[in-house]
Amino acid sequence: MKLITFSREGVSRVGAVEGNNVIDLNLAYQSLLESEGQLRYRQIAEAYVPSDMNGLLQGGKESLAKAEEAIQFALKNKEDKGRKLVLSTDEVKVEAPVPNPGKMICVGHNYREHILEMKREIPQHPVVFAKFANTVIGPEDDIPFFPISEQLDYEAEFAFVIGKRARNVSQEDALDYVAGYTIVNDVTYRDIQRRTLQWLQGKTVEGSAPMGPWLITTDELQNPSGLEVVLTVNGEERQHTNTANLVFSVQYLVEFLSNLMTLEPGDVILTGTPGGVGFAMNPQTFLKDGDVVKIEIDQIGSLENTVKKVAVEVKLYDIDYNSASYRIGSTIVRSND
Amino acid sequence: MKLITFSREGVSRVGAVEGNNVIDLNLAYQSLLESEGQLRYRQIAEAYVPSDMNGLLQGGKESLAKAEEAIQFALKNKEDKGRKLVLSTDEVKVEAPVPNPGKMICVGHNYREHILEMKREIPQHPVVFAKFANTVIGPEDDIPFFPISEQLDYEAEFAFVIGKRARNVSQEDALDYVAGYTIVNDVTYRDIQRRTLQWLQGKTVEGSAPMGPWLITTDELQNPSGLEVVLTVNGEERQHTNTANLVFSVQYLVEFLSNLMTLEPGDVILTGTPGGVGFAMNPQTFLKDGDVVKIEIDQIGSLENTVKKVAVEVKLYDIDYNSASYRIGSTIVRSND
Repeated sequence: MKLITFSREGVSRVGAVEGNNVIDLNLAYQSLLESEGQLRYRQIAEAYVPSDMNGLLQGGKESLAKAEEAIQFALKNKEDKGRKLVLSTDEVKVEAPVPNPGKMICVGHNYREHILEMKREIPQHPVVFAKFANTVIGPEDDIPFFPISEQLDYEAEFAFVIGKRARNVSQEDALDYVAGYTIVNDVTYRDIQRRTLQWLQGKTVEGSAPMGPWLITTDELQNPSGLEVVLTVNGEERQHTNTANLVFSVQYLVEFLSNLMTLEPGDVILTGTPGGVGFAMNPQTFLKDGDVVKIEIDQIGSLENTVKKVAVEVKLYDIDYNSASYRIGSTIVRSND
Repeated sequence: MKLITFSREGVSRVGAVEGNNVIDLNLAYQSLLESEGQLRYRQIAEAYVPSDMNGLLQGGKESLAKAEEAIQFALKNKEDKGRKLVLSTDEVKVEAPVPNPGKMICVGHNYREHILEMKREIPQHPVVFAKFANTVIGPEDDIPFFPISEQLDYEAEFAFVIGKRARNVSQEDALDYVAGYTIVNDVTYRDIQRRTLQWLQGKTVEGSAPMGPWLITTDELQNPSGLEVVLTVNGEERQHTNTANLVFSVQYLVEFLSNLMTLEPGDVILTGTPGGVGFAMNPQTFLKDGDVVKIEIDQIGSLENTVKKVAVEVKLYDIDYNSASYRIGSTIVRSND
């Protein structure tokens, strides 16, 4: 299934995309249950196929199977007792598939060919950092460019979404805990990221995680390796890799992360970005108002967003553009005592 | 008010502590409304004084004022129509006041005297990093010590909790956006924290954020500066500072962080730890099974937890205890391209 979150007339719902159709899964499941004579159709649908993505994912494979039944019912019964079970993609706004992930865990330095090309050593352990859910925007949203920095940059990322509570899961079993895959642009304010040792502040700026266009479930996309990843800015290719080049695979990351913490349905893990970010170009080339950033990943689709300078009045922190020297010369600051 | 989350007979509720009494705020507000002849007392109480902390905080000052009315009502009417509005502290388990914060933002290197004693420069910008909500445990819980490391360490932290949605808030207005204060132990697995450039993995291990004993609201604790902070392990003083020594104050942090992102009610910000962590002792002294870690902060109270080795079978990642050299010699790995 291609699961989406969509909004329409002020209401946010979970849907499945089939061609140009969007099936409202909760409504469709209500209708299916009612057609079977179930008086508690509304409550049972709310329990098993709720209208929010985190709820649906908490239901695990059982809920996804019922969602699949709902799709089949809806394709045969596009309207039912006044309920519009099937909408056209034109009628809805597609939002981020997981609009409110409990955790967003990002992996850095994870593309083998780029590490080797930079003559670095392959890291022993994944480098992980966070974004918070305030960053999430959808495939039809603009990337807000706040006047707090001039160094807005992109990062194409193949992302997976947890579908089953995971703790101490082995690599062998890992994919059973993955609901599916999506695309995230790990938009980064480089100077803010780099002005201290910890990247979080440049990574979790409002609206800096465009996600979508959908969550493709693991029955449709079975092997997360071998997928081409291409990012373009205004049509010019900037990043190009293949998920076969990941140092730490999806399976490894599930094991590694679930060894540290409990992963919950709806948690989103970004697997890292390859070379070609604007910060590394010569000369450095950052995003500007109106730029169109498009990420395409095999078997998933494409995520395209336009950068839009935001004119809100924000306090300009005095950004030290020479702060790299502060950081690079500051191994002493790195200690944690 | 001293707001707590408590559990009893399998149900989690929000309460206020008055001496040895715990007032169930939602139930008390229901009773108050019913006594005024309000037929929709349950629904209105659920809307304004719900039984979960994030919900209560979302209601802002209006909800806190109603909670205050509920306390006064309950102290005069300890039982009402079979509802037990006032419980004894012995009858409940006190949980973390904010069991599920949307964001936990931690500040590093924030105590002036310690920075100067280490002959470091005062940082230009706050260093911020994340913990996720999976870390939160309560004042009556043990600190789980998972066999993934031998370097479990403590960090006493004065924390504030957001009480009103905040975006681009000035320092002058900042305290209006704070609901109150609490204590958090930023428990850290040092080797895991330090084996890569980004600290997250050693900071967000399950159960590594004991929080409590309560959230003291800003009407009771008006000035977050000038509070003594003391941490002991088995009665031996290890950390001792005063919040007057913070480089970046609560007010500054609200401005700084809300300039980057929207802060939401229930977000918890940990303001940093002073010197004296086990990692910095000579010889290094880490926590072990049975150790009792107690943090006391003026006007708040104390948070005491016992370390408990967990015997669950977890995969032992091969931890490189020499990884400091890997990291310290690896400024090249820090670049983000």
